[in-house]
This record gives sequence, structure tokens and C-alpha cells, in this order.
Amino acid sequence: MSKGDETRARIIEQSAPLFNKQGFAGTALSDLMEATGLQKGGIYRHFASKEELAAEAFDYAWRKAIEVRAHGVDSTPNAVDRLKRMVENFVELRTGLVPGGCPLMNAAIDSDDGNTVMRERARGALRNWQTRLAAIVKRGLKDRQIRVGIEPDQLAALVISQLEGALMMSRINQSRQPLEWAKVHLTDYLETRVRAS
Amino acid sequence: MSKGDETRARIIEQSAPLFNKQGFAGTALSDLMEATGLQKGGIYRHFASKEELAAEAFDYAWRKAIEVRAHGVDSTPNAVDRLKRMVENFVELRTGLVPGGCPLMNAAIDSDDGNTVMRERARGALRNWQTRLAAIVKRGLKDRQIRVGIEPDQLAALVISQLEGALMMSRINQSRQPLEWAKVHLTDYLETRVRAS
Repeated sequence: MSKGDETRARIIEQSAPLFNKQGFAGTALSDLMEATGLQKGGIYRHFASKEELAAEAFDYAWRKAIEVRAHGVDSTPNAVDRLKRMVENFVELRTGLVPGGCPLMNAAIDSDDGNTVMRERARGALRNWQTRLAAIVKRGLKDRQIRVGIEPDQLAALVISQLEGALMMSRINQSRQPLEWAKVHLTDYLETRVRAS
Repeated sequence: MSKGDETRARIIEQSAPLFNKQGFAGTALSDLMEATGLQKGGIYRHFASKEELAAEAFDYAWRKAIEVRAHGVDSTPNAVDRLKRMVENFVELRTGLVPGGCPLMNAAIDSDDGNTVMRERARGALRNWQTRLAAIVKRGLKDRQIRVGIEPDQLAALVISQLEGALMMSRINQSRQPLEWAKVHLTDYLETRVRAS
């Protein structure tokens, strides 16, 4: 990595928590300067615009989130257990994440205000997560670990919507309870309705 | 209703779509003036602050949302059918709502930026919705229409988180599919795991 690439990577890493917590519009240049210790010119030497930096910061935060959610999944042999592990990781693992909550929910919030850069990012991230979960389901169907008739995209969407909705409730209530209930519910659902008998 | 009360109610009604779509910070006084056809003084004669107007606008939007979601519920005799009706209303009914999507999700987004007025409103609205659903479950348990062991608050939270998460996915993907899947899933869950046999 060249010195320039290193600085660029460091700016992304240091800006990611700001964008994730405060959103695109809520993150001022002065915040970015304070977090990175750089002047305006020092930041914009590496990025064409605030949009470009925000997009890179989102990708960084999302990569971290996916790493955490996928922790131990590949080494789990059964497809249903892999899905359960993803649910557990989402609910339980908090280390290694960029502070400020789920980047997908945050980008959805940003894109809701008509921010097209963040909308595209949110759409891509959601597609990416859905595809990962659906791939596990497809593999499980092929290996006869998952019940015939389960639709991969549909199951992926159900798991994601249950988790993201519970996360929203947990945020509003400032309580982990909705997330814990979502875990119990999804685990039960995966065992009783998805696992091949 | 006095002339003053009428004007106040009209300001709330006309501001509600703005706050619901654009959020608290994103709604400028100039937007409110344009929507109501009033000058600053004409608006603030009726409200102590933008916070007060936003809070009233939220309550108005939430009341409309609850009316729509509760449509036909009271006249449905069975508790499980009442829950199913609420799910259907959430997914299918779009008329009578304040434009801009679910006020609860929007207030959650606003309160995420540290807006305490909207956080309190979001928390109250969520509690209100949870309480309504939990009351249906409690009644259903009493009337032996719902399976023994079902926990009212937990079931209420599951339904809400599934619906709100699906709504978030639908917004990001600009597709109704996640909402339709959530309806199918919840209906199946209510029939197979909640209804007393």
C-alpha cells in the first residue's frame, strides 16, 4: 500500500463511524476534519466529493457488518445451522462493528431523504445480504437439509425483515428484548418449518 | 370548534405530510408556510415551537395509521382473525394514510439523530401499538382462541418487527414483495403456531 492509499484507507476508517451515526447530511466537513486530523484539502485530495467518501465509508461499515454476521458460518456444516448462526451473530455479536448500528438501516434512512448515492448503496447491500442467505438455502435444498418447497429468496427476506424490524424496535425502546425475541422466534421457525425432517 | 381551533387543526393536517416525508430537520419553516399558505406569525400563533407542531403532526399521522390498521378489527370475532386482519391492513391498505410511509419508522429515523421530541413520540406510538396487539392476544387467551403459552408482548413484538422490517426492505428495494411475503409468513405462523386447535 502506498502512503496515499494508506491515508485514504485511514480517512475511510475514521469517517465511517460519523456517517453511520449521523447520516450523510448530518456529517459536516468540520466533523470529518476533526475525526481525521486533516484539513479540507487533505481529505479531498483522496476523494472527489463527500458522496464518494460517504459511499466508501458505507462499504467499509457494511464489510465489517457482514464479517461479523458471517462469523463461523462457513465452518458450520448444516444449512439450517448456518442460518441460525447468522441470526445469533446478528443479535449477539457487537464487537468489530463500526459504531452507530446497522449500516443498512442507516443507509435506508439516509436514502429516504432522497439521497441517491446512499439509496444505491443500501440497495446493493440489501441485495448482497439477501443473496448470501438465499445461497445458503439453495445449498441446503440441494443437500436435502432444508424442506422441499422452501423458497430461498422468500426465506432470506423473512429473516432479514424480522431482524431489521426487531433492531428498529430495540432502538426505539432502548431495550435488547425485541432482538432476543426475534432470535427465539427465527430459531424456532427454522427448526420446525425449514429443517428437513 | 372555534375559528382558532379550526386553523390549528388545519395547520397540523397540512404539515403532517411534510414532517412524515422530510423528517423534523428536513422540514423548513418555508415549507410549512407554503403548505399552509400562512406567514410565520400565523403558524406560531398556534404553536409554541416547531417541536410542538411536529409532535402534533406526528400524533395526527399516527392516529390515521392506527385507524387504517385497525379497520374492521373490532368487528372480527376471533382473536387470531383480528391479528390477521391487522397484518392484512398494514400490508394492503394505503388510503387514508398521511403520505410518507409509516410514521413510526419515520419518527424512529428522526429520533435516531438525537431528536428527543420525536424519540418520545416514537416510543409512545410503539408502546401504543404493542399494547393494542397484546390486548388482542390476552383476550384470545382468555377466550381459548389462542394457544396456551403464547406470550402477548412477545407475539405483539414479533408481528410489529416483521412488518416494519418488511416495510424497510420494501422501501429500499422499491418493491412490495417483502411486505407480501411478510403477510404470507405471519398468516401461516398465526394459523399453525398461535391459533388454538
